[in-house]
Amino acid sequence: MKSAQEVVDTMYNGDAFSKWLGIKVEHCEAGACRLSLVVREEMTNGFKIAHGGISYSLADSALAFASNGHGTQALSIETAISHTKPVKVGEKMIATASEIRKSRSIGIYEVRVQNEAGDLVAHFKGTVFRKDLEW
Amino acid sequence: MKSAQEVVDTMYNGDAFSKWLGIKVEHCEAGACRLSLVVREEMTNGFKIAHGGISYSLADSALAFASNGHGTQALSIETAISHTKPVKVGEKMIATASEIRKSRSIGIYEVRVQNEAGDLVAHFKGTVFRKDLEW
Amino acid sequence: MKSAQEVVDTMYNGDAFSKWLGIKVEHCEAGACRLSLVVREEMTNGFKIAHGGISYSLADSALAFASNGHGTQALSIETAISHTKPVKVGEKMIATASEIRKSRSIGIYEVRVQNEAGDLVAHFKGTVFRKDLEW
Amino acid sequence: MKSAQEVVDTMYNGDAFSKWLGIKVEHCEAGACRLSLVVREEMTNGFKIAHGGISYSLADSALAFASNGHGTQALSIETAISHTKPVKVGEKMIATASEIRKSRSIGIYEVRVQNEAGDLVAHFKGTVFRKDLEW
Repeated sequence: MKSAQEVVDTMYNGDAFSKWLGIKVEHCEAGACRLSLVVREEMTNGFKIAHGGISYSLADSALAFASNGHGTQALSIETAISHTKPVKVGEKMIATASEIRKSRSIGIYEVRVQNEAGDLVAHFKGTVFRKDLEW
Repeated sequence: MKSAQEVVDTMYNGDAFSKWLGIKVEHCEAGACRLSLVVREEMTNGFKIAHGGISYSLADSALAFASNGHGTQALSIETAISHTKPVKVGEKMIATASEIRKSRSIGIYEVRVQNEAGDLVAHFKGTVFRKDLEW
Repeated sequence: MKSAQEVVDTMYNGDAFSKWLGIKVEHCEAGACRLSLVVREEMTNGFKIAHGGISYSLADSALAFASNGHGTQALSIETAISHTKPVKVGEKMIATASEIRKSRSIGIYEVRVQNEAGDLVAHFKGTVFRKDLEW
Repeated sequence: MKSAQEVVDTMYNGDAFSKWLGIKVEHCEAGACRLSLVVREEMTNGFKIAHGGISYSLADSALAFASNGHGTQALSIETAISHTKPVKVGEKMIATASEIRKSRSIGIYEVRVQNEAGDLVAHFKGTVFRKDLEW
């Protein structure tokens, strides 16, 4: 079975949107990971802050990397996010995914997205369906 | 007070990320709207399907346009999305936002995201805090 | 395979809490059902309105009956509810469950809870994991 | 302004359903609390385990006590719960509420529900609207 690092490398290499976002994999292991990105002008909405889709995309990638890091394929079932603080152009977002629960077929993850000052900018929860299929 | 169309024009004009996504406003009114986009190569993940962040971003823009269309400012509090069917490069996604409930300070919206065949590709629910501030 | 009615009868007969709540099965079929209950004094919170747990319990039972009504066992994975209007002692709540999506292993349901005037008192969404095991 | 303990006493004294559930307030302070209950026969569903509405009700009460403990009134906007492990008759559930975020008008709380062995039996997240009205 592939290691968490091998799975994440494979996933990230083919992931054009995570690359466009400039996502950097800071750390990964089975069931956990930490990703970051820096907000660019083209990622902002009409209020000149990062569009909600940017923090969601970062957190959703963190969910995918953490849950697939066990070496078997995981599919997102349901995700929820609260945006708690605006993030401006040039600011860095750091998403930290951790495992709340893992059973044979279900995994639940929390992703906390913070700015560099450590403030929570978004809080994400995701549930995945774990398949028997190895990476 | 500005009309729904005027608010959406104002929001959309300044929204760099919605423009990058190629979002098209098909229809808008107070409390409802319909947006679409066509999936491009750079929006895909490692499975060569649209990244979950793309349908989320489309639905989140639909939430913003529908809830602000009443003419007063609305802030997203909590959003949830289920991805129910993969969407490939070249396919069109259509997001239709409708109002489940509106009180003085809270609004709840459902956004159904469909492909051109009418299949549900994502189901989104969003709650906003309605401020007294006019657009 | 058992019919929706047979499954719901089996589930309801053994369900002590649904009985305590006085839940009445108004209608059931595979993937859908309608349940009701009347709010009693002992179901209220400190504001003299139905505790949020009452509308949740009604909606959660509706989710269970609708999703198991296909004849195979379904387990709740994730549920969310918004309480949109207070319900007083003596008032009736009617919960209507409908299927948003059904795949081989996942089902997504919406439950709208209304009072007798037809006002939405709670909006519930539930996701279930569908097992291969027949009832 | 009332203290957290005074608010919780006031809320709990009038809360008939929390009393029926046998909820015990183990600890409370502004923004946090710990509640418990012991599962009785009449709280079970057709699988002879606690109905999902029981852990929800316990967690929802924990949300109410923690968020109102700041001394001003808080109204639930949106709640979500995952049931992660069955709980049998005679088992104790302990719900621990903590604050993820508090702004002037919004509060977000996590409630972890555990059995006596420390296993997570349910994971709950709730968002409240904070009014200016003192208790």
